[in-house]
Amino acid sequence: MPLAGPFPLMEYQDRCRRVQTAMVESGLAALLLTSEPDVRYVSGFLTRFWESPTRPWFVILPASGKPVAIIPAIGAPLMARGWIEDIRTWDAPDYRDDGVSLLTEALRALVPPGGRIGVPIGRESVMRMPLADWDRVRANLGDRGCEDASDLLRRLQGRKSAAEIALIREACAIGGRAFDRVPDILRPGVTLSEVFRRFQILLLEEGADWVSYLAGGAGPGGYGDVISPADARPLRQGDLLMLDTGAVRQGYFCDFDRNWSLGPASAELREAHRVLHDVTEAAFDVARPGATARDLHAAMAPILTARAGAPVPGRLGHGLGMRLTEPPSLIPDDDTELVPGMVLTLEPSLPLGPGRMMVHEENIVIGAGGAEWLTPRAPRDLPELGWRD
Amino acid sequence: MPLAGPFPLMEYQDRCRRVQTAMVESGLAALLLTSEPDVRYVSGFLTRFWESPTRPWFVILPASGKPVAIIPAIGAPLMARGWIEDIRTWDAPDYRDDGVSLLTEALRALVPPGGRIGVPIGRESVMRMPLADWDRVRANLGDRGCEDASDLLRRLQGRKSAAEIALIREACAIGGRAFDRVPDILRPGVTLSEVFRRFQILLLEEGADWVSYLAGGAGPGGYGDVISPADARPLRQGDLLMLDTGAVRQGYFCDFDRNWSLGPASAELREAHRVLHDVTEAAFDVARPGATARDLHAAMAPILTARAGAPVPGRLGHGLGMRLTEPPSLIPDDDTELVPGMVLTLEPSLPLGPGRMMVHEENIVIGAGGAEWLTPRAPRDLPELGWRD
Repeated sequence: MPLAGPFPLMEYQDRCRRVQTAMVESGLAALLLTSEPDVRYVSGFLTRFWESPTRPWFVILPASGKPVAIIPAIGAPLMARGWIEDIRTWDAPDYRDDGVSLLTEALRALVPPGGRIGVPIGRESVMRMPLADWDRVRANLGDRGCEDASDLLRRLQGRKSAAEIALIREACAIGGRAFDRVPDILRPGVTLSEVFRRFQILLLEEGADWVSYLAGGAGPGGYGDVISPADARPLRQGDLLMLDTGAVRQGYFCDFDRNWSLGPASAELREAHRVLHDVTEAAFDVARPGATARDLHAAMAPILTARAGAPVPGRLGHGLGMRLTEPPSLIPDDDTELVPGMVLTLEPSLPLGPGRMMVHEENIVIGAGGAEWLTPRAPRDLPELGWRD
Repeated sequence: MPLAGPFPLMEYQDRCRRVQTAMVESGLAALLLTSEPDVRYVSGFLTRFWESPTRPWFVILPASGKPVAIIPAIGAPLMARGWIEDIRTWDAPDYRDDGVSLLTEALRALVPPGGRIGVPIGRESVMRMPLADWDRVRANLGDRGCEDASDLLRRLQGRKSAAEIALIREACAIGGRAFDRVPDILRPGVTLSEVFRRFQILLLEEGADWVSYLAGGAGPGGYGDVISPADARPLRQGDLLMLDTGAVRQGYFCDFDRNWSLGPASAELREAHRVLHDVTEAAFDVARPGATARDLHAAMAPILTARAGAPVPGRLGHGLGMRLTEPPSLIPDDDTELVPGMVLTLEPSLPLGPGRMMVHEENIVIGAGGAEWLTPRAPRDLPELGWRD
């Protein structure tokens, strides 16, 4: 029977070999992984069951050999369809011992006394288990030390394989086809809330497995923010509408947006859209191996500052893959060097006035010779839709 | 302008008053909240932006007065549309100080020296911030102590308000209407993967804001597990199909399932479905204030054991609300007393043979005089759909 999930065995063997090489260089005897993407990265364990916060899940990757899964029994059949053979389970939730003894015992056996255990506790990480339980585990590790493994994982997970890039490309294509159909769901009187609902339907119709993220906004001459849920205000002529999606295909995200003017656009909006387009072009042009996340920010920020009249705060893009957002961040402080296989979003925004902004976002992948668009490129000119209130 | 979100101001005032009363009883000077549902519970902050793991979000609830939000600047406009006035922001991500100083300073100001800070670190909790940053905060709190506040929050969040129950009831009704339409999306040759996609569309069409969870299974005479993603195998006559959804309405979940036989069902499947139905009835009958989670398990387990010939492992239901799964767990070790306003799932399963099982799930709310179904009740007899391969 083939492995569950989109990848062949070799994908996981390669990943673990690269991680283990880095572990040996860092002197780590084992990695302890608890988050959905980290567990999935080494095991292939893909399930929406993580939505339930009840149960913790653990995978230990020793410096050599295959990973060891220590998981609730309910996950054993799916984990067994992957490549991991050593699967230890308990009947969770267990109020007396919710995997703590199993995890402690495994760490003590896999890590020699005095050995060091890598745990992602740095930037953008979450320890997905009750902290009180983690304290119990740590108290029983003897002189084994725990240290941050976020950098190590970020570096390796950031360099996507061809198979991973193919899935992100597929997610982007799905998003692109759904965006193309947005004019079909815009009818006079429709609310942003209804547009959100119908756009998710379009994404599913076009092949998304699920829609983990949808944001957007609409307002006269610009939207106020980009993280609020949709409201019940009917769209109106003169609105700038934006939809920004994180649709998922076999566990991999796209993350890009599109803007539309409902009816003729003002000169201000038309110009802002062209500026944002040019900003992404500027970043695209410098995005190649050897450039840094900071360089991409530096290519974009001055154009935004010139247009806005003052520095525009916030990051201007980020990594993308198994998570909606991944390292690096396109900010002045991020000196991550771009390498082939890195997938990034370019996401500049412009303030237009009080409570009015415009954001544009595209996805790229770094190749040996430069960047490539993963998203179908938005037009430079803001699309103006026929609209009558 | 009314508050963003589904509730009036009084909902949050009531919640915080109840939490603060419990805090005073426990001698806690403040609560530190970092997870999506905990933050939303006291602030009303509802956004899908939590899907991005990059940024931490903090809310401190002092023992008296309003909560204080310490959040990335990108969230300020939405938070300001809620009832919280004291909103402190930083431009995240900030690699030098990602909210650590702001959080530390606020805790030091709101909690007197020697005071105690409640943090959910117990069962079903996750500290949603990098552990290395939390260690930095703790190291600068002087003699202020941190202790687990999971029980306190669980107890209060478990007793839903009428407005919360109305939203869960709405989510259940949406799920029920979508389940009623499932026969429309079953065509010969359709794969489970396609059924998952189309069922999510049905949920959106029926009014779900988004679909955070969908599980299910299909197989001859039963499915193998209930957490695997859908596969590309075409459904066949003789399959038992199950779909289990966590659709969301204004931030509140339903969580229930339905089973169908594709074509005539075997006597075994028909009987198993009736048994599971009777098991949920048995739990429903004892579900009233004063009974415990353990009592509900005790009402269900013997019927399952009698049918299966051996004890059936796993919990038989759980709490439901702002999360797909919440405390309590219907297991022998959970002595949580049921109180009016508690929303529960009843979720018995039966092993049928190697790689074959059946699960049934409904949602109830505890009232003063007993339980009430929130889900439209599944029929006792397994629905048999006309089907030709």
